[in-house]
Amino acid sequence: MADGRQRFLEAAVRLFARHSVAGTSLQMIGDELGVTKAAVHHHFRSREELLTAVVEPVRVGLRSTVAAAEALRGRHVRADRALTGFVDLVLANRELLPVLQGDPGAAELLGSHPDLHDLTGRLTQLLADVEPGPTGHVRADAVLSGTACAAGPRSNHIDPAELRAVLIETGRRALALRIRKEQPRTSQLC
Amino acid sequence: MADGRQRFLEAAVRLFARHSVAGTSLQMIGDELGVTKAAVHHHFRSREELLTAVVEPVRVGLRSTVAAAEALRGRHVRADRALTGFVDLVLANRELLPVLQGDPGAAELLGSHPDLHDLTGRLTQLLADVEPGPTGHVRADAVLSGTACAAGPRSNHIDPAELRAVLIETGRRALALRIRKEQPRTSQLC
Repeated sequence: MADGRQRFLEAAVRLFARHSVAGTSLQMIGDELGVTKAAVHHHFRSREELLTAVVEPVRVGLRSTVAAAEALRGRHVRADRALTGFVDLVLANRELLPVLQGDPGAAELLGSHPDLHDLTGRLTQLLADVEPGPTGHVRADAVLSGTACAAGPRSNHIDPAELRAVLIETGRRALALRIRKEQPRTSQLC
Repeated sequence: MADGRQRFLEAAVRLFARHSVAGTSLQMIGDELGVTKAAVHHHFRSREELLTAVVEPVRVGLRSTVAAAEALRGRHVRADRALTGFVDLVLANRELLPVLQGDPGAAELLGSHPDLHDLTGRLTQLLADVEPGPTGHVRADAVLSGTACAAGPRSNHIDPAELRAVLIETGRRALALRIRKEQPRTSQLC
């Protein structure tokens, strides 16, 4: 029933986007898939349990991005690794992240998820460290939320590689990241 | 009863932030203020009518910002006027705008409001015009949504003038605006 579970998660994301997290019931997810509420309950005992399952890929990706960035030296290099990883995470979860971004029901549930709360705090800190004081935090918030929203449905027609490049460059500009460009190896060999 | 009406609007914004637009009923607004649903109905016949009243100050501010920017010449100057006006609008509506930003219930209702739909489209275009093609639109989306979110509750402890300056500078950087700095008049007189 792994496939069945996956179908429920995908239906949940579609309904969150349409009705918000607070406006989506397990009954509605059942209706969307033409099954009974009991069939939904077989997989998820509560909306909380369902939301935790929905965000699991984001949690795993966030953990790996944050750990990779924190392992680097230099605040600009760390911020750039965090930004790039976040853009990739957003693009891999384009239906989900713009929804979670501004949904108070999601914010409340995710805020009470200790691991996600910790990881988003560390991600924000990695970007905020580029500039001291509250300024750095405002910029980090603007970049993270702007990235998530700009990858939403209005950008569906844009080539994903182009969208990725624009989002990364916009974030780098907003944070004023100074990243030493790596020398292309081929030119050194010629 | 103008004050009564204003109290309903303020209660609505508080409840939208807590429960999303879709999750907020006229009954809940009545409960929040300790009045009957009929008393709420006396002012607003539907949730749609209430939301339209809630966003009215934003609509008026948006209209004036968009008109002022469109009256200028030069795409960088126009974008800068639009950005600055939007930051001021966000800061004057700090409880409301982060809520509307990511709420699918609000997006649906606002999208069907012809004037607001037109104004937000023109605001986005003013920022997008800085760069041709889809790139400009992605950056415009990122700046507008990032600005709205970064002015949310997490920035409540920051001095408003400092927050305004950071938001404007972050947007200018992200859009790579080239604005000719006006000479300070006092130094010319000295």
